[in-house]
Amino acid sequence: MSKKAGIIGGTGYTGGELARILCRHPGIEIVVMTSRQQAGKPVSDAHGHLKGYVDLEFSSALSPGEDLDVVFLATPHGASMQHVPALMDSGVKVVDLSGDYRLDDVETYERWYGMDHSDPGNIPNAVYGIPELYRDDIRRSQLVANPGCYPTATILAMAPLLKEGVADPDAIVDAKSGTSGAGMSPSPRLHHPRCGETILAYGVGTHRHTPEIEMVMGRLAGSEGKALFTPHLMPVVRGILSTCYLELKEDLDADELRAVYERVYAGERFIHYVDEPCVRAVAMSNHCQVSVRRVGGRAVAFGAIDNLVKGASGQAVQCANLMLGFDEAAGLDVPGMGV
Amino acid sequence: MSKKAGIIGGTGYTGGELARILCRHPGIEIVVMTSRQQAGKPVSDAHGHLKGYVDLEFSSALSPGEDLDVVFLATPHGASMQHVPALMDSGVKVVDLSGDYRLDDVETYERWYGMDHSDPGNIPNAVYGIPELYRDDIRRSQLVANPGCYPTATILAMAPLLKEGVADPDAIVDAKSGTSGAGMSPSPRLHHPRCGETILAYGVGTHRHTPEIEMVMGRLAGSEGKALFTPHLMPVVRGILSTCYLELKEDLDADELRAVYERVYAGERFIHYVDEPCVRAVAMSNHCQVSVRRVGGRAVAFGAIDNLVKGASGQAVQCANLMLGFDEAAGLDVPGMGV
Amino acid sequence: MSKKAGIIGGTGYTGGELARILCRHPGIEIVVMTSRQQAGKPVSDAHGHLKGYVDLEFSSALSPGEDLDVVFLATPHGASMQHVPALMDSGVKVVDLSGDYRLDDVETYERWYGMDHSDPGNIPNAVYGIPELYRDDIRRSQLVANPGCYPTATILAMAPLLKEGVADPDAIVDAKSGTSGAGMSPSPRLHHPRCGETILAYGVGTHRHTPEIEMVMGRLAGSEGKALFTPHLMPVVRGILSTCYLELKEDLDADELRAVYERVYAGERFIHYVDEPCVRAVAMSNHCQVSVRRVGGRAVAFGAIDNLVKGASGQAVQCANLMLGFDEAAGLDVPGMGV
Amino acid sequence: MSKKAGIIGGTGYTGGELARILCRHPGIEIVVMTSRQQAGKPVSDAHGHLKGYVDLEFSSALSPGEDLDVVFLATPHGASMQHVPALMDSGVKVVDLSGDYRLDDVETYERWYGMDHSDPGNIPNAVYGIPELYRDDIRRSQLVANPGCYPTATILAMAPLLKEGVADPDAIVDAKSGTSGAGMSPSPRLHHPRCGETILAYGVGTHRHTPEIEMVMGRLAGSEGKALFTPHLMPVVRGILSTCYLELKEDLDADELRAVYERVYAGERFIHYVDEPCVRAVAMSNHCQVSVRRVGGRAVAFGAIDNLVKGASGQAVQCANLMLGFDEAAGLDVPGMGV
Repeated sequence: MSKKAGIIGGTGYTGGELARILCRHPGIEIVVMTSRQQAGKPVSDAHGHLKGYVDLEFSSALSPGEDLDVVFLATPHGASMQHVPALMDSGVKVVDLSGDYRLDDVETYERWYGMDHSDPGNIPNAVYGIPELYRDDIRRSQLVANPGCYPTATILAMAPLLKEGVADPDAIVDAKSGTSGAGMSPSPRLHHPRCGETILAYGVGTHRHTPEIEMVMGRLAGSEGKALFTPHLMPVVRGILSTCYLELKEDLDADELRAVYERVYAGERFIHYVDEPCVRAVAMSNHCQVSVRRVGGRAVAFGAIDNLVKGASGQAVQCANLMLGFDEAAGLDVPGMGV
Repeated sequence: MSKKAGIIGGTGYTGGELARILCRHPGIEIVVMTSRQQAGKPVSDAHGHLKGYVDLEFSSALSPGEDLDVVFLATPHGASMQHVPALMDSGVKVVDLSGDYRLDDVETYERWYGMDHSDPGNIPNAVYGIPELYRDDIRRSQLVANPGCYPTATILAMAPLLKEGVADPDAIVDAKSGTSGAGMSPSPRLHHPRCGETILAYGVGTHRHTPEIEMVMGRLAGSEGKALFTPHLMPVVRGILSTCYLELKEDLDADELRAVYERVYAGERFIHYVDEPCVRAVAMSNHCQVSVRRVGGRAVAFGAIDNLVKGASGQAVQCANLMLGFDEAAGLDVPGMGV
Repeated sequence: MSKKAGIIGGTGYTGGELARILCRHPGIEIVVMTSRQQAGKPVSDAHGHLKGYVDLEFSSALSPGEDLDVVFLATPHGASMQHVPALMDSGVKVVDLSGDYRLDDVETYERWYGMDHSDPGNIPNAVYGIPELYRDDIRRSQLVANPGCYPTATILAMAPLLKEGVADPDAIVDAKSGTSGAGMSPSPRLHHPRCGETILAYGVGTHRHTPEIEMVMGRLAGSEGKALFTPHLMPVVRGILSTCYLELKEDLDADELRAVYERVYAGERFIHYVDEPCVRAVAMSNHCQVSVRRVGGRAVAFGAIDNLVKGASGQAVQCANLMLGFDEAAGLDVPGMGV
Repeated sequence: MSKKAGIIGGTGYTGGELARILCRHPGIEIVVMTSRQQAGKPVSDAHGHLKGYVDLEFSSALSPGEDLDVVFLATPHGASMQHVPALMDSGVKVVDLSGDYRLDDVETYERWYGMDHSDPGNIPNAVYGIPELYRDDIRRSQLVANPGCYPTATILAMAPLLKEGVADPDAIVDAKSGTSGAGMSPSPRLHHPRCGETILAYGVGTHRHTPEIEMVMGRLAGSEGKALFTPHLMPVVRGILSTCYLELKEDLDADELRAVYERVYAGERFIHYVDEPCVRAVAMSNHCQVSVRRVGGRAVAFGAIDNLVKGASGQAVQCANLMLGFDEAAGLDVPGMGV
């Protein structure tokens, strides 16, 4: 018998992507998708590609007694923490795609997000949702803080170096993202004539994904993590390539570096060590390609993902699979686009 | 027990796409992929995104006694007809993705393709592989001539008008294709600096898909089909939008025109009538979006597909499903990208 | 001594493009650019690329006694006709880039634009600003209605056939435009994740450029002009390719058709007959590439321009050059991008 | 009276771009363009956008007694050094766009370029052609080694920090280039279906522009320069954005850092300090936008150029202007595209 899922905030890109994945999931059924603005309208009006796959209408909210097994919060930061307390009380599993529960330190959250946290009590209950790093914790948790897109690509790129202690946890992270990462609201920066044939850096050193990257770096290394994070917007719809620079602590050659990755990621379904990571190879899939080069005393580590799948909704389903006792790859086990 | 498939010509885009689809097919297993140039090398070297999904090495050719249920010919025209006679004799089902068996008239083939046909005897055995039009014939056939990408989008756009006799079978077809339709061989026209930020028309009135479109138009209308076909190359990797102009024979209004489409495509899993067809909505899927407008005494009919899926490998699998007795949508029943 | 120009509506793309061209013009100097919203701010804040070239601040409006030789109205339709009466009274030359004075029939204007025309008295004073067709009239006029981007590409593509009477003035026009034609206001349709890797048709048979195309077709042919106009949005910033289909009235072969173009456009600085028109070749220039093919009894005519230059601001300057007695190519005589 | 220029290697992108710029130059006239393969054919066959601007045919080689003032070598490395000795003997000014004379150390050249240098004697005669750094030397030189595209963007980004000694000359350089930088030869990597909607890193730590960057860094800093250089290929035709990371030696705040740039680049016609560098703003121009941020103890420095203009042919003309006694901006003084 299928598990029942609800998606709160179903009109945006991550909500649509959750529905695209879950509508083919062997064990999870979407029973409700909410949207305040589009309540009462067919989901396939907002997401034309889901016609014939998702036959729901948007609800304005979850019904009080709705019997759900898992709720995905595809809501912006600030909104998620309004929903979580009641959901936690109800006992349902929760995967929050916003940044509200990712940072374990409330003060850091409030400084970077510029708002008070209204539900600090649940922060310790949240597990950071990268299954390749925190699989067992996720399996046992009721609340998963699904990682940001940039942090996913970046942490997966660097984790082996930090876990095995071969590089300092002080990284320069130069990331390039497709435009879908910015969400569905039109804005000058995302206006095609402006961004369609150019690249630009934004939020240099001030992007909210910085403390998230640093937090996980620190955990992996066992000492304070530091990241100088520079995101760039490139004229591609889906995909992130994160290029990370770290000082090596040990004198490993190319083969030894590669061996570190293969050791740490042995048996991982979704992580692939390749010579030349390519976002097109992983687009439309939950896969991540990683690679590492040694140049002088530094390592250059790469991570490539689809920002909407492994960087958001795919990883959320991967976490939910663990929380609900499914095979981790259920509903996600397809290759990327390639071409 | 799974049916066994072979793919001849496995290094190109359609070969890779067949493998991408079949590796997740519930009833078909790829047992051999051939490539003369890459024989002995892992398939996932040529198609990096298939790592973990296709664990074969390329063979130089099919083994003589290979026990296969279906063979896909992802070979160029001219090459396919070298393979077909022996395959037909062996009794295996064959889906040919080239143009060798699409045209029922040998002379027309030889004029448009500029070469002699070495296997005219099998032309009458070939069924043109658009399931939405020739489902029963495909089911019973041993040899399917899988349609070209442009003809698929174009014919699906116009078929209702021709089948119901509401428009003349004399069309102006203005089609826009992504670059993957041109195949994997680098060429000046497909060089990114030349085609990356422009659009160009090519093969105006001389493209080989013209007689194919005309043949099917004629069959549907019951009188000679004529098409003025102008393909354009646009800076997108996947997708075709075909815009077709026809003279209306009957005075139907917008609702009546739409009703024609809904009648003809009633129950079709992969055809969707929409107001605004969009290649992004169907990319990475076997779906086709169609639409029609009336302007003055003319109909403007639209068809949008992924040229590598519904326009090539997806449709080939759809045909194979019918030939092998599977559900027609097996392995293909996923929504498009959307974003 | 330089002629003095004002630009009303200086923040948009056509206003910026006028400034980009005029700042290097040998005989015209921009003395005022207006913007209600950005009054008092440097022009180079809105148009960063003009830093060092345009050192003005935006004014909220023209000063009453401003001594100008020419005013460019880079304002939307509806707004232009608020400005024209007073400007005409002042005796200044006016080039209006909106649609307000393009259609010679008020009723047609009001039907297609959905608003009353507040200045019908000046419509007969306006000359339609395609210099290659109406050079002498433009030279003598005080008010030029600068053509739309689609009409420019389309009319230049077809004009020789209509002028020499070799084709019927009943055309199917399938045009593909870059996104900058839609202007600088963010909107869902122009949001990069939605339009960046797809193509879509819009305003089929209902686009406001239809009556403009038909009016000029009719003038050229000497009988009623008809156009079925289908614009498409493609993922390129600059450029329009218009593909036009017409029935031939005379049995001309390829060479004779080409000769028609070379005759009609003999000596034209900005029109080039080529075998394969390419928007990249003309981007960032006032040039237009045209071509024609014969297929059966039809002609397929192509026109390629940069929608912001020959399709808007460049042509406006070309008209102003004529009105002010300059060489027609002054400030515009540069080749396109090429690559 | 115009100075006479020859272009050796006229069919490629930099050759075409030299012609595009020089055909509008007030003081330089192209009298010969060579191409071994296209000798005898019109230049405008290879460069369609130059029709009406360059009316030459390609020559197979310079004529022995050709009376030229300047020769541009738009030839690949290895080929340039075949031409330079005779040109130097003839007394003509030479601007070499290849890497043959950029590195002052022959051994470094031979190691990075994998070939012997056949003309080491002229290396000391070559001046590295960034006018903003070496204006007087260029003015006096007979041979200019025109910089690589990546080094131009990168060095201009970092030069103020190194010249004023506020940062260590040990940089991490993460650069993103448009595809035209790879030249006009089709290749798998530049095939649109492969590179059109993705980004990839290549030549990590092994790209030939590395020693060039390091050489100039060292000169500016007065101590050994080190660069970890990672180029990326992005789906844009023109433009480079170079993002550079350096350790600050002095505790400067944001305003002080910016002041360093404004001091060093005071009066420079082509260098602009901006908050958000954008390749689109400088495309089709010789301009460079630079910017700097401080994050922790590091500086993040940005440089944006058009790789074919300031990164190649435009800078070559800028150098030639200095060598021939023209205003440095002659033929180059136009703003970028903007949109």
